[in-house]
Parts: sequence; structure tokens; C-alpha cells
Amino acid sequence: MNQIHVGCRLRYTVQSETTFLFNISVTQNTFQSTTNESIEVSPFHKIEECAVGPLGNRYLRMTANPGDLTIDYRATVELHANEVDSTDVCEVNYENLPADVLTYLNPSRYCESDKLLRFAGEEFGQLVPGYSRVTAICNWTFDHLTYTPGSTGPLTTACDVLIQRTGVCRDYAHLAISMCRACGIPARYVSGYAVRLQPPDFHGFFEAYLDGRWFLFDATRLAPVGGFVRIGTGRDAADVAFATIRGDAQSTEVTVWSDEQQGGDHMLDPDNVQTGVSSAS
Amino acid sequence: MNQIHVGCRLRYTVQSETTFLFNISVTQNTFQSTTNESIEVSPFHKIEECAVGPLGNRYLRMTANPGDLTIDYRATVELHANEVDSTDVCEVNYENLPADVLTYLNPSRYCESDKLLRFAGEEFGQLVPGYSRVTAICNWTFDHLTYTPGSTGPLTTACDVLIQRTGVCRDYAHLAISMCRACGIPARYVSGYAVRLQPPDFHGFFEAYLDGRWFLFDATRLAPVGGFVRIGTGRDAADVAFATIRGDAQSTEVTVWSDEQQGGDHMLDPDNVQTGVSSAS
Amino acid sequence: MNQIHVGCRLRYTVQSETTFLFNISVTQNTFQSTTNESIEVSPFHKIEECAVGPLGNRYLRMTANPGDLTIDYRATVELHANEVDSTDVCEVNYENLPADVLTYLNPSRYCESDKLLRFAGEEFGQLVPGYSRVTAICNWTFDHLTYTPGSTGPLTTACDVLIQRTGVCRDYAHLAISMCRACGIPARYVSGYAVRLQPPDFHGFFEAYLDGRWFLFDATRLAPVGGFVRIGTGRDAADVAFATIRGDAQSTEVTVWSDEQQGGDHMLDPDNVQTGVSSAS
Amino acid sequence: MNQIHVGCRLRYTVQSETTFLFNISVTQNTFQSTTNESIEVSPFHKIEECAVGPLGNRYLRMTANPGDLTIDYRATVELHANEVDSTDVCEVNYENLPADVLTYLNPSRYCESDKLLRFAGEEFGQLVPGYSRVTAICNWTFDHLTYTPGSTGPLTTACDVLIQRTGVCRDYAHLAISMCRACGIPARYVSGYAVRLQPPDFHGFFEAYLDGRWFLFDATRLAPVGGFVRIGTGRDAADVAFATIRGDAQSTEVTVWSDEQQGGDHMLDPDNVQTGVSSAS
Repeated sequence: MNQIHVGCRLRYTVQSETTFLFNISVTQNTFQSTTNESIEVSPFHKIEECAVGPLGNRYLRMTANPGDLTIDYRATVELHANEVDSTDVCEVNYENLPADVLTYLNPSRYCESDKLLRFAGEEFGQLVPGYSRVTAICNWTFDHLTYTPGSTGPLTTACDVLIQRTGVCRDYAHLAISMCRACGIPARYVSGYAVRLQPPDFHGFFEAYLDGRWFLFDATRLAPVGGFVRIGTGRDAADVAFATIRGDAQSTEVTVWSDEQQGGDHMLDPDNVQTGVSSAS
Repeated sequence: MNQIHVGCRLRYTVQSETTFLFNISVTQNTFQSTTNESIEVSPFHKIEECAVGPLGNRYLRMTANPGDLTIDYRATVELHANEVDSTDVCEVNYENLPADVLTYLNPSRYCESDKLLRFAGEEFGQLVPGYSRVTAICNWTFDHLTYTPGSTGPLTTACDVLIQRTGVCRDYAHLAISMCRACGIPARYVSGYAVRLQPPDFHGFFEAYLDGRWFLFDATRLAPVGGFVRIGTGRDAADVAFATIRGDAQSTEVTVWSDEQQGGDHMLDPDNVQTGVSSAS
Repeated sequence: MNQIHVGCRLRYTVQSETTFLFNISVTQNTFQSTTNESIEVSPFHKIEECAVGPLGNRYLRMTANPGDLTIDYRATVELHANEVDSTDVCEVNYENLPADVLTYLNPSRYCESDKLLRFAGEEFGQLVPGYSRVTAICNWTFDHLTYTPGSTGPLTTACDVLIQRTGVCRDYAHLAISMCRACGIPARYVSGYAVRLQPPDFHGFFEAYLDGRWFLFDATRLAPVGGFVRIGTGRDAADVAFATIRGDAQSTEVTVWSDEQQGGDHMLDPDNVQTGVSSAS
Repeated sequence: MNQIHVGCRLRYTVQSETTFLFNISVTQNTFQSTTNESIEVSPFHKIEECAVGPLGNRYLRMTANPGDLTIDYRATVELHANEVDSTDVCEVNYENLPADVLTYLNPSRYCESDKLLRFAGEEFGQLVPGYSRVTAICNWTFDHLTYTPGSTGPLTTACDVLIQRTGVCRDYAHLAISMCRACGIPARYVSGYAVRLQPPDFHGFFEAYLDGRWFLFDATRLAPVGGFVRIGTGRDAADVAFATIRGDAQSTEVTVWSDEQQGGDHMLDPDNVQTGVSSAS
């Protein structure tokens, strides 16, 4: 059992009536339970939690009046990671993939896997299928990119990153997802909080569908996978922006934290590829 | 009531064991009911209908042995189009969009709406919101593109089309979808059969979310919207390929037909923008 | 006669031995003569003027030691603009274009005119050939773009700008050049100093080949064409960067000025399209 | 001495008056002399040889009437390759590059070297500068691409090729050129005839500036470098299209040949990287 305190403070200067959609609340699923959660909006505005979809993404929506606006979100989460001996984790044949998983083989806005069929085939096609092949994709991504804050932007795609060889966590995830899909392994983007991430920020990682479950991966090696707290799940970062703004408002602060209460010892080391974390049904 | 016979014949030469996923079966929903449907595979292979997802897409999956393969699909469909006076059809404020519709505002593989915010704002931002604004986007798309078979390929995106000003039905749909999303109107891709389409083929069109429902649109003006029979629905064409092939097989024939039994008189004319077709819940 | 004082101050912090190539010296040609010119390097470093090529671009090359480095360039230039009644200025038939001009019909790094043949044909193909057609391209560029400092970067191309509809002077020039080439009008990029430009900076504009000569144009309308002092000429901005740095040095200051001595009355107004400036042989 | 017969037959159906610019005539320089040359146009049309530029490209221009048109070009060429022990061939420091060579460090339409600085630095930055580094770039290009006729088109760039990993001779040249430029080695595109090329066609290769001269390279290994007969030289393929057509004409035949008279034994083997061919001043 692993208890983690996470949260964020977002501040805006709202110029004219603006609708915000926040994707900052932690997901509730069998691998992650919330023991405590609060959201404060100052000054007070009514905030609506949109209906939760099949992926468990929880959107908070509010329309704010002009002026300063502060959102404080806090949650205490218990992670019940299902550690698995990854040597047994195989890929699922295309013939046997569930229909709702097939979507995650399709290319998406930032993951042009359709352009990378030959590339992925040549780099990863000869590897033994299974968990270790996704690990190889992560290692390859780590080896070929340099983590450079500010080097990419909201329009940057996996193919851009492959050319320029630099990016941030979302770019690492997009590139690895693209390679997985091009190899026939369903993969999707996960946003979340991550303990021991320096500097603290929202994190982007991904999961691959293997052996009938989704397994978490992170090609950046910036934080232990066992300390990830899921916020949102989607095809790529386009689906899980932490804030979508319709109106005229400027961000003035984004502070994110994620502290482990205790027992970080049990967290999986990012370099330890022998044990997989199955974290979504 | 409008009864339509649709179908297709697909032939392949299979070189080695190959898994196919077909998205050729018509959707079942309140606007479209199937009175008759058959699928024949020669030589015989077991074909599985994957579980139908929330969008109603029906995938047929089969693993074929080497040799020639023929798929014959036939259906008789009754369309119960819900004709609406489009002058009353308004856009839905971002504040009030259902959570499961928000997805269709996000950019996708072939619809880079995030690059087109300024473009769409300048071209369509001053228009009166509502059904007529989507019609204006369709007209603009029609006016700025030339329909040229073979001019684009599977990698072509809305932005490519905007530059090269030529494309086929899927490109028209992608460009119009992108402009809608950039204007804040949820929009998604629809594949289907279409009566009076010359030459007969699978068709690609789109729908926009207005007034709490989805309305069909087609920027190509190649066939009457009232004669569209829906196969698949997705973010863009990446989600509804009529055939996905994993293995080694060559297509040798794609024949598509769509015949109205009677009463085509009641079909909506593509140039008639006064009456909208609400065709999905 | 029009006398103009131009110059720039460039400062760098050089970390390790670095070679610089500067393209800041004004061109010498029949339309522009230098009455006074100086270049100061502090601390002193030997600076070499590379051989001047057929375009008259004058490159200064120097290898600097670690430390602070300041370059001060000053020149006094007399402009002998050859004003022409632009109503008489025709396009040159492809059959009659000089061989050395043909190059400026080819696409280049930032001017993908090959992608824009249909676009340009549809927008400008029906216009009367001649000076007024290039003016129409400038007006169209001005009308479709918003001048936004910082909105684009060194990788931005004409097609990017066409999609995002915003840019700076170099982007305006690239887009107009691309449209000219796609219409069969040779066009090339010019960098220079420009009087009355606010804020003062290096400027990017272009010239088109008409009636056997090159004529200056500027789609930004930010400064009078009659007050442009040419530095470099090339296919696009890739050829005339004001500073190319091989080594490890950071820019700490870029100050540019351009002051008319007198007689600015005779400068051509950017909105006055009746009089053309023929400014290169 | 190496005597080679080269030529081509181009046929067109001209619909309306059309101007052609052909770049099919062999260059004359100290490494390549023409002993015999003829051009036949049937039916007869006057053909003009445009003035030869500094690169020695010879353009033939003609305006053809409607009807069938055949161009027959033949030349006998003696190659005086200047074989050099490539182990002695060093790179030229940026400080010492001639001004007219600097252009070939700039990115161009199909060679976006500016995007590849980090990529090239990581792959080739640690190699010993000199002829062998360009050979390493050629080998890397050969190893990472698959030669696939029809896999690319006229819009394909080096970065596209790097992603899709397949191309034809022009794509191999563009990718290798881009990597050279990104490494600080001036490089340019060469079109030509090539003996022993199967199937016979126009060939695209490149040259890199080393040790004060230009050296030929070919990353495709499809033909011996010693049997290349130069037609045109440019920044990339945009500069040396074998036929540029302004008007309405369809190509009905492109036949190319290149036969060695004798003594092919002395040709350099494409795999032999010890001996360089210096073939342009």
C-alpha cells in the first residue's frame, strides 16, 4: 500500500467571462482509490463535475467571471499497484484484441503511427513480442531523445520529435506510443501526478495493452512508475489537457505537488524492467 | 420511409495467414434499421462480429488462409430521417456540451483543428452560430476544393488539403470537421453507403453536434444526405477504415453499391440547406 | 537622391572559440551607393570580407576568442531608386526569362511554391499579368496575415504561415514569394535596413522579376519601399541570415537603426502601388 | 580514360502551345569532355541553349506546337576522373570555406538540414572529420533506407524520408546532403547519367566539398561513381529537373541510356571507399 498526497494550484487572470474545463482530478479505479479529495475555487464559482466516461476521466467545468481566479485541488490517493512478473507478459494477437482496445492502434493527432510502420518494423520488428518489447521501445526512446524543457510546443508530434531528437515528457510518451501502435501493440496516453518528479509538474506517460491488461510505462525515467497517480487517459495529449480555456484568461500560476506519505521503498524503480505495473482494467 | 439496398464485394489474394477487420456493416440505430442483412465469405472462413461500441460501429474480424478470398455484404436498410427545420438549430454553448461530446472538439490525426483556430475564427467567427454556420463551412469547403480522385492519399490531412486545394470525400470531410472544431462545434467523421453517388464507392461525410443532437453534412455535394446509410462513426477516417489488414494480402476488387428501392423523391437535396437531417442520438 | 544612415550593434558572449559570418553590410549596386562605412569589433579581432558573389552579398567572417564581443556597423547610403510607372510593367514570358533568373522560380526551404500551384492559380491566375498582379499578391498576403512578433520561428515556412495566418516580415515575404513563383513570376528574398520601421529591426522583403528587371515589394506595409537599404539577396531567408554562428556564443544585444538624412518626402508610400521601384539589375 | 555513350529519348503529346526547359545535356568541365553531341527534335522546332551559369548547367528551351513531340539527345563523353587517395581528404574549416561554397550549407527545399542539427550531431558528430565521415553518412543512409521505386514523390523531403525509411535515388541524395550540411560539410545535388544502373534512368547523387574540391558520392550503391556523367548541379533536385513544362503536355516516353565504350574495369566500385572521385572544380 502506497499513500500519496497530490494536488495543484492554478491561478488565472480572467478578462471576460470564460469557461474552463479542468482535467486535474485523480481517476478512481481498482488500482487507485481516493481517501480524501477537495477542490476550492476562490472567489467562489459553481464548479460542475462532468459525467465520467468509460476511461474514468473526470472533468471539472466552470464559467468564471472577470477577475483573479484560484483553483486549489488536493487529494490523498492509495495505490494498489498490481505488480506482475513481466517476463510472463505477452502481446495479444490482433485476432484476439477486444473491440474497444482496437482504437488504440489507430494513429492520432500527435502519434502518427501510420507513418512509422516501416521504421518500427525495422527497429523493433525482430524483437521477442511481449512486455520486454515495449521496454525496448522505451529504452530506444530514452536513448534517442534529450529531455529539454521548452524545446517543443503544443503542435509537436511524434514525427517532429523523431527528427529533432529532443522533447519533454509528453513527447517521449507520444513517440513511444507511436512505435507501439506501429508494432501492433495498443498504446495510449496517461496524464498524472508523479512522486519524486523534479521539478514537480504534471507528468505524461503511457500504457500499453499486453496480456489482456494495460501496463504503465514511462520512457523519460524521471520518476518511479509505482508512484504515478492517474488523472486522465486518452489517445494522446490532445485528450487530457489539464486546462482547456474558452474565453479570455491568462495563466499566472501552475504549481503541482505529489508527496509520498511513506513506504516509497516499494515503488518500482524506473530502471527495473523485470516487474510490470498493471494499473487499469 | 426510405428503403435502400446497400452492399459491397471485396476480393483479396491472401499470400499468408492474414487477419482482416472489416467495417462495412451498417449501423443499427433509431434513424436506420436493417430489415435484411447477409455476409458471405468464400471460401468459408469463420467471421466474428466484435462487440459493438458506444458509437455503434460493427467490426467483422476474420483470419484468412492463403488463397483467393471474397467477401459479399448485403443489407436492406430503412432510413427514418428526422427532418428538422434547420433555421431553429442552434449551437450548444461550451458550458453545456455533454462530457462525451467534448472529445469531438479535440484535434485528431487528419483534423488538426488546433492549427486552424485563427483561420477558422477569421473565416467563420463572425457568422451567426447555428446550423447555417456549419452549412457555410461546407459551402466554403466546396468552393475552395476541387474533387480530384487520386489527388490525395492515406496520409493526407486537413491542413494538406487546405494548401493543395484538392481532394476526395474524406478530405472534404476532414477539412470541414477541422473548421467546425476550430469554431467550437463538435464534429466527427462518418463513413457509409450513399445512393446516387457516381461512381459508386464508400462515402465519407461528417456530422456536427448542434442543439443537442448530431446532424449530417456533406461538403462534396455528390449525393443527397437523405440517402446516406451509416457504417461507422469516428474522430476521423483513421477510426473507420473499411478494411484493416494485418498480414500479407492484396486487394483485387472493391465494388460498392447503394440503390434506393423507391421514393427517392423525399431525399434531401444536397443544395437544400433549409432542412437538416438529425441522424444519430 | 535619398541619403540614409544605417547600422547595427550586435553583442555576444563567446564561450569558446567561435566563427561568425555576418551579413549586415549594405550591398553596392547602381541603385545604392555607400558614401561612408565602418565596422568596429571590440575587442579587436581580424575580420575578413568574403568575396562578393554575383548577388552582391557581402559576408564578414571572423573567429572570436572567448569573452564579450561587440560589432558596430555603420554606413551612409545614397539611394538612386529608379522610379517607374508601374502600369507599363509587364511579366516576362517563361520563354524569354534569362537563364540566371529561372532559379527564382524553383521552390526553396521556406517557399514551397511547388505545393501552391493550384492555390495560386485559383487566387491569382485570372488577374492581368504584370506589376499589378504582384501588388495583388502583396495585398492578399497583407489581408490574410496578422503581423504578430514571436508567432513564428526559424523553421516556419510559407505553407505554415498560410495555415496559421500570422507571422513577421520574413513570413510575409516567404508567402508572397511562394505565390509569385507558383504564378510563374520569379521572386526572391531581400534583407535590409528600412527607415521608419517601428520598432527598428532588420527587415525582410522581396523582389519580383518583371519587364527585365527586379522590383521591390513588401507585403507588410510597415515601411516605405523607397527607404529600403539592401543588405542581402537570396532564395529565401535561409540565404541571408544576419549572423551565422559556428561555435558557442549567446547573443546579448541586437540594435538596428536606419535614419533618413532628409527628403523622406520622395519616398514611395507603401500603399502607393502606381509607382514601382526597380532596384537591382 | 573512360568513354561513355549517353542519351535519352523523351516523347510528349502536346495539347496546346507549351514551353519546355530540358536539363539533359551533359556538363562540360575539366573532368568531363564531350566528343560528340546531338539533339534532335521531331517534328522540327527551334531549340535554344540558355546561357550556361557558373555551375555549368545547360538548359535547352523550346516552345512546341500541339501534336506529338520527340526529343533525342545523344552524347559521347570522356571522363577524366581525378582519383585521389581519400585517406588524405580532410574537411574544410568553416573559417576557410570559400564564399561561393557557403550556400551549400544552407537548407533547401528538399534538404531541411536546419531541422537535423542535433540528429546529425549525435549520429556523426563524433566521427573523424574528412572523406570517411561523408562515407559514413552514405553508409548510414544506405543502411536506413530501402530503395523502393514509386514510394516517394515530387514533394518528398529528406525529413519525410527519414521517417518513412524508403525512397529512390533522389531521396537518398537529399538525406545524405542534409546530414552533411547539418555536420558543417557543404553538399549539393548532382543529376546525371550512370552506367550499369538497372533499370537505366536518370540518376541523382551528390557531392560534398572537402579539401578544397567537390567529391562525388552516391548513397544508393546502384552504380559505380566512376561511371557518372554529370548533367546538372544544384542545391537539391528542385534545381535540376530534367524537364520543366509550362503548358499542357503529357509525357509518353522517357528512355535513358548510358553505355561504357570500354575499360569499365577502371571504374570505381561503389563499395570502394578508399579512393575518392574529385569531379568538379
